[in-house]
Amino acid sequence: MSKSASERSCAREASGGFGVSRLRSRYCPKTPIWFKQLTKPASTSALYTLRALLFTAALAVVGPALAADKPPAEFKETAFLLENGMEVVVIPDHRAPIVTHMVWYKVGSADEPPGKSGIAHFFEHLMFKATAHHEAGEFDRAVSDIGGSNNAFTSYDFTAFYETVAPPDLELMMSFEADRMRNLILTDDVVKTERDVILEERRSRIDNNPQAVLDEEVDATLWQNQPYRIPVIGWMQEMQQLNRTDAVAFYYKYYQPSNAVLIVAGDVEPDAVKALAEKTYGKVPRGPDRPPRVRPVEPEQNTKRTVTLSDARVSVPNFSTQWVVPSYGTAKPGEAEALDLLAEILGGGNRSRLYQELVVRQGIASSAGANFEGTMLDDTNFTVYGAPRGDAKLADVEAAVDAEVARIVSDGVTPDELEKAKDRYVRSRILGRDNQNSMADIYGSTLATGGNVQDVQQWPDRIRKVTTDEVKAVAARYLVLDRSTTGYLLPQVKAEN
Amino acid sequence: MSKSASERSCAREASGGFGVSRLRSRYCPKTPIWFKQLTKPASTSALYTLRALLFTAALAVVGPALAADKPPAEFKETAFLLENGMEVVVIPDHRAPIVTHMVWYKVGSADEPPGKSGIAHFFEHLMFKATAHHEAGEFDRAVSDIGGSNNAFTSYDFTAFYETVAPPDLELMMSFEADRMRNLILTDDVVKTERDVILEERRSRIDNNPQAVLDEEVDATLWQNQPYRIPVIGWMQEMQQLNRTDAVAFYYKYYQPSNAVLIVAGDVEPDAVKALAEKTYGKVPRGPDRPPRVRPVEPEQNTKRTVTLSDARVSVPNFSTQWVVPSYGTAKPGEAEALDLLAEILGGGNRSRLYQELVVRQGIASSAGANFEGTMLDDTNFTVYGAPRGDAKLADVEAAVDAEVARIVSDGVTPDELEKAKDRYVRSRILGRDNQNSMADIYGSTLATGGNVQDVQQWPDRIRKVTTDEVKAVAARYLVLDRSTTGYLLPQVKAEN
Repeated sequence: MSKSASERSCAREASGGFGVSRLRSRYCPKTPIWFKQLTKPASTSALYTLRALLFTAALAVVGPALAADKPPAEFKETAFLLENGMEVVVIPDHRAPIVTHMVWYKVGSADEPPGKSGIAHFFEHLMFKATAHHEAGEFDRAVSDIGGSNNAFTSYDFTAFYETVAPPDLELMMSFEADRMRNLILTDDVVKTERDVILEERRSRIDNNPQAVLDEEVDATLWQNQPYRIPVIGWMQEMQQLNRTDAVAFYYKYYQPSNAVLIVAGDVEPDAVKALAEKTYGKVPRGPDRPPRVRPVEPEQNTKRTVTLSDARVSVPNFSTQWVVPSYGTAKPGEAEALDLLAEILGGGNRSRLYQELVVRQGIASSAGANFEGTMLDDTNFTVYGAPRGDAKLADVEAAVDAEVARIVSDGVTPDELEKAKDRYVRSRILGRDNQNSMADIYGSTLATGGNVQDVQQWPDRIRKVTTDEVKAVAARYLVLDRSTTGYLLPQVKAEN
Repeated sequence: MSKSASERSCAREASGGFGVSRLRSRYCPKTPIWFKQLTKPASTSALYTLRALLFTAALAVVGPALAADKPPAEFKETAFLLENGMEVVVIPDHRAPIVTHMVWYKVGSADEPPGKSGIAHFFEHLMFKATAHHEAGEFDRAVSDIGGSNNAFTSYDFTAFYETVAPPDLELMMSFEADRMRNLILTDDVVKTERDVILEERRSRIDNNPQAVLDEEVDATLWQNQPYRIPVIGWMQEMQQLNRTDAVAFYYKYYQPSNAVLIVAGDVEPDAVKALAEKTYGKVPRGPDRPPRVRPVEPEQNTKRTVTLSDARVSVPNFSTQWVVPSYGTAKPGEAEALDLLAEILGGGNRSRLYQELVVRQGIASSAGANFEGTMLDDTNFTVYGAPRGDAKLADVEAAVDAEVARIVSDGVTPDELEKAKDRYVRSRILGRDNQNSMADIYGSTLATGGNVQDVQQWPDRIRKVTTDEVKAVAARYLVLDRSTTGYLLPQVKAEN
């Protein structure tokens, strides 16, 4: 529930047609390779442009709503459960005749069995294959034929599928989605063919990208026990072994209505959506209930760790330092909100301390910032990062970042910068809510990581309550350089042996 | 199947009464804390002394055997299977009226379910509790009453229990062992009480020992996917949650005759042992067969990683650099043997390059060496290490070690040093065989990690066949400093923030 609505859209687009969501990666805005490799550019329909225009318009008109920290009344959501356990949230938004329909499954890469990494993301692909009632690709073509757009993404805690269409087509979308929730045909041939696709995806997006290779090993160094250590795309040697038996077991375990959240945002009414949902998803049998999502947790970190990759393709070096911190899913009351504001003040954008000090004042960095990924089921990571500009040395940038970290740990933040950060933060959320897609995203990701509708509603109030002492406390408690993990991406140096 | 017989005894003694075996740790000879914390010193009986004397005597008389690279004829082993699938190896040794009786279970910490770390070692403790036929501690007292010794140890791939007694008492030992293989009474009370013991063991042996804390995080940094990353003792937060349900499931899954190896070495005859084994272990029902031990494997390492711990209790710093390499369980033919000889030549003792160069010639190191732990089911680690002497800097020691690594990678080894290393190596194995306990250890650990009796028998011949090219090839392939993991233990420096 961080202010990552924009990061999340970025992540989704970055992920391409069926890409790996990089929700936890700070590199999303910086590594265009993730944007270039769209595997389904055809599905980026005219509606994308419409939505972009709408979002821009919303930025201009949202002023009145900001004063009250509340979204426009028409965005008031309705939540209910279907009899088979499927959660539904409807968010009416009548400004344009479009509707966003998303199904979020509460399963991501962190839920995978040992040795089966990549299967959650693999399923994101398999869900586009033939079912008992539709041929492979038929759903895609239907969306395309009606001028809609669709996509899917996978992260550590969830896998989501969405379509944006005109309201009269909502029932068709629901019908397709409900069908593939239960009727997927998983043959050896389907599994093998699609496995080649994900293997190629890994080669092109990870193995060919030094930053992605480094990120993977940094993640697996930061996380020594918790499964966020395992890459969403999967380890190559395990992806190669994924088979039909694995796929069938995974499908029947996780692709159940009681393990899914339906979000419908747009030019619709809750009662009508409810009727449609009962008519489509409501027909899917409940299936076995899932036990609580309890995963291995991280031991205390006692060391300073570094991970260094030198590669001939790197021209400008960079570094990032990470810490394990609580998420909205694991934090004590107020702690995740304080971490959100800490990240905002320390390095949340052009007004942040890191940017102002390193990029503007000292002029040694081309980028510098901080990030906190709060919307996670388990403990998450807090990151600071930087890259040098011109003749500046990476070590100088790192030292300057470390100095800002040390300063915020020892001196905390001022009441003035805290209030300004809260304003920016809450406003960005409200702007996010004003974008239909972002709204659906906020609800979906929150509900898929253990939160509920109230958590979303009360979040601005909880942010408002954070004190300077609380921000200083989380900085002092978590941002300890002797217990951090730093990744370095460096230009190639002479081989050592 | 490395020459770790002596290391293994060290590990076992280091592990104390029911300790964590540190088979893979190079620190075993260096951190006396592992020796001091014997929880069952009473069981170190007079037979230990007898065995030590016997071993010393054997050193003096082993000369003739060495010439042929063969053990004395009387050590010829006999192997067979019981009907319930239990493997048995009998190694007659009539020089003294004692017998070593070991049961090795093919389950170690690397077989634990996710989130249940420590349960394999926990079981080593629980096996000394009450059964349907004997009270808790009764087995221990019986061994003590007859002047025998006993102990147990746990590692990544196996858990073993052994007793050394006079031959007439062998049947009694077998009867006790066979009983606790099937009749353990696991109550909530037993589990909770013993859990407190292992938690205390973790506190005293790991959490109070900076070297052990560092080693744990280095292991979890070196291994990013393979379960050797998880400490044998377990992560504290998971040990605290281990309960009766976990224990019962683990017991019935792994403590089965078809998952066990019985080694009997000493003043016995195979036929008599077979009859006793059938009378005791043979009565235990076969139980379900275990599937092959297939575990998550390690992805390729592309980075250089470091892990640094600074602690006020450290006076002399040290470092160790590790690589993931094949073990006897995973290597192509000849590769593990070449790694064994590489470790021997580079840093296997006082005649090794590292010792001669750093300790003797340059005089900058108090210790320097290399280690290869070959007897593992999955890929293992190759380690080089060093600590400065006097005013020397750790960085200078590390640079000198790295230089020796680079030299052996680029120039390989000489035929003369390879032949000498083979001699030392094979001799140390024969000396090991000459020690009853070591013989049992070699067979038990080999059979518990996927090997067989022939592997043990043919090992000297395979070592003899290794060429200088093969040693250079494994050095060049695996000892790449840009793809290594280094741990630093440092004295406390001023806190950074």
